Amino acid sequence: MNEKRYVLAADVGGTNLRIAAVGSDGKLLHQTSTSTPRDGTADEIVEAIVGAASSCLSRALVSGKPSSFGLALAALVDPRTGSVYSSPNLPQLDGLPLANLISTLLDTEVVLENDATAAAIGESWLGASAGIENSICLTIGTGIGGGLILNGRTYRGVGGTAGELGHICVEADGVPCGCGSRGCLEQYSSATAVVRIARELAGKKTSQWNLADRFTAKDVYHAAVAGDPVAIETFQIVGRYLGIALADIVNVLNPEMIVLGGGGAGSWDFFIEATWSEIRERAFSHPAEAVEIVRASLGGNAGILGAASVAFDRARAR
Amino acid sequence: MNEKRYVLAADVGGTNLRIAAVGSDGKLLHQTSTSTPRDGTADEIVEAIVGAASSCLSRALVSGKPSSFGLALAALVDPRTGSVYSSPNLPQLDGLPLANLISTLLDTEVVLENDATAAAIGESWLGASAGIENSICLTIGTGIGGGLILNGRTYRGVGGTAGELGHICVEADGVPCGCGSRGCLEQYSSATAVVRIARELAGKKTSQWNLADRFTAKDVYHAAVAGDPVAIETFQIVGRYLGIALADIVNVLNPEMIVLGGGGAGSWDFFIEATWSEIRERAFSHPAEAVEIVRASLGGNAGILGAASVAFDRARAR
Repeated sequence: MNEKRYVLAADVGGTNLRIAAVGSDGKLLHQTSTSTPRDGTADEIVEAIVGAASSCLSRALVSGKPSSFGLALAALVDPRTGSVYSSPNLPQLDGLPLANLISTLLDTEVVLENDATAAAIGESWLGASAGIENSICLTIGTGIGGGLILNGRTYRGVGGTAGELGHICVEADGVPCGCGSRGCLEQYSSATAVVRIARELAGKKTSQWNLADRFTAKDVYHAAVAGDPVAIETFQIVGRYLGIALADIVNVLNPEMIVLGGGGAGSWDFFIEATWSEIRERAFSHPAEAVEIVRASLGGNAGILGAASVAFDRARAR
Repeated sequence: MNEKRYVLAADVGGTNLRIAAVGSDGKLLHQTSTSTPRDGTADEIVEAIVGAASSCLSRALVSGKPSSFGLALAALVDPRTGSVYSSPNLPQLDGLPLANLISTLLDTEVVLENDATAAAIGESWLGASAGIENSICLTIGTGIGGGLILNGRTYRGVGGTAGELGHICVEADGVPCGCGSRGCLEQYSSATAVVRIARELAGKKTSQWNLADRFTAKDVYHAAVAGDPVAIETFQIVGRYLGIALADIVNVLNPEMIVLGGGGAGSWDFFIEATWSEIRERAFSHPAEAVEIVRASLGGNAGILGAASVAFDRARAR
């Protein structure tokens, strides 16, 4: 491959829209960040992406057109057609042939990818799971996304939606989930769940921590660092439910590595023991002993690097 | 491939030991069935397998040695080394290099495979899921086993134990399972579970069905056919829990097809509606609409044909 080739890569969330020009070694040649026009129309979101891409290209010290444009979106997408199935954060994109629309406006091939699958690909390319044949990546944020690398390849399933690990059922008649189901992992181990569980526990018990009316998962983390028992118990519950889902994954997929990323992985020290204890209790011992659970190493860049990787793959396949 | 080539294939369960000589088109050239010496020593089990294999070979109208010998075992096995990790029905085999032992005695290469994975391979070769890129096969009997065909290949994971679908958690603090965990699908949707659930329901409710002290899942099936409300409710509960696990599979693996085999699939008419209703309620709509759930088509031969398929694969790879 020509070393001077580069791709565009974007990570489009409900809040931020990040775009970078990325070299074939994964180097971010230039990157821009702007707000996603969350309340705008679909056209306005498309324009914002195209505008940010053009701006990034004009400022990056690159020559020639990008080989391709990889776009990671926090949505259920079909990577083959580039269409959005359903986008909980940006529902105005539902059903849109997003890749085609942007491709026409930018005159560049566009590849669409689920953001958590992109993060798994990024970690597998340049991060924690580089060189690993079978790895599973969970991105723990407001929600929980996932991506699967199986037999050395990204596994997407028949329609491209595989890897929705946040919607593994961990409590048959549990808390209702935004996906329409109930008892999903996302309702027990995401940042949103940390807040809900802490609030419930604090209502029942005496806490040293002065609970405000509104607080975030980060507040609960800081309270845990300060030794607050409610905050500490919250992360143990969160870790235990994560362990139930990971035991399923260990039994079903027997992976070498599980990578935990996203803001939620930052509370690692407070949940990982409970998670491991649950896995050891629940999963078969051979696959449980074979799996390594590690923290993601690319931080906020996993998604954009994964999007770049799929863009390079697509360009190579031409 | 030489059309006259054939392999030996065995399906070794806790009760029956079946061996067949199988042609490259999947034709069973000759087959034998005997009892597994369940209470014998490991040596006695190995001898029984070798004896049955020799007897099958001497009676089959085949010329020359088999190309390979595929052995499906109801156990957690390592197909690469041919060792048994753990065998709940025949614990005397735990840790044994079974493939090597039999290989030495028969002077034929032996490939070991988990029986439910073998069934998935058999169905994918000549049965319900032939030609399907991504299919999941559940074998519902006394326990529940599973096998995964992903991206057109058998997926085994890093240690060969992938596909333990019977041990997906469907009830976080549920019924203790033989695997050491609790709330596993196997405890809610296997033939064993049918008996437990029917007994529990019959204790609570008036049943037309005259419940004997000892009864089997087949008895519950016949009672359901006769219209007994307790038996009918039993299969609805069984179907609902199966739906919880299949919704996980639909969300995580987005397969084209799920194949249900084993004796438990015989009660299809009494559980499948509850299963589908749970999947539609719980899984994302796109992958749920994309998946087909069908009954296995090879009956009791799925495992032996799958074992034959892995034997042919091994012979081809030489």
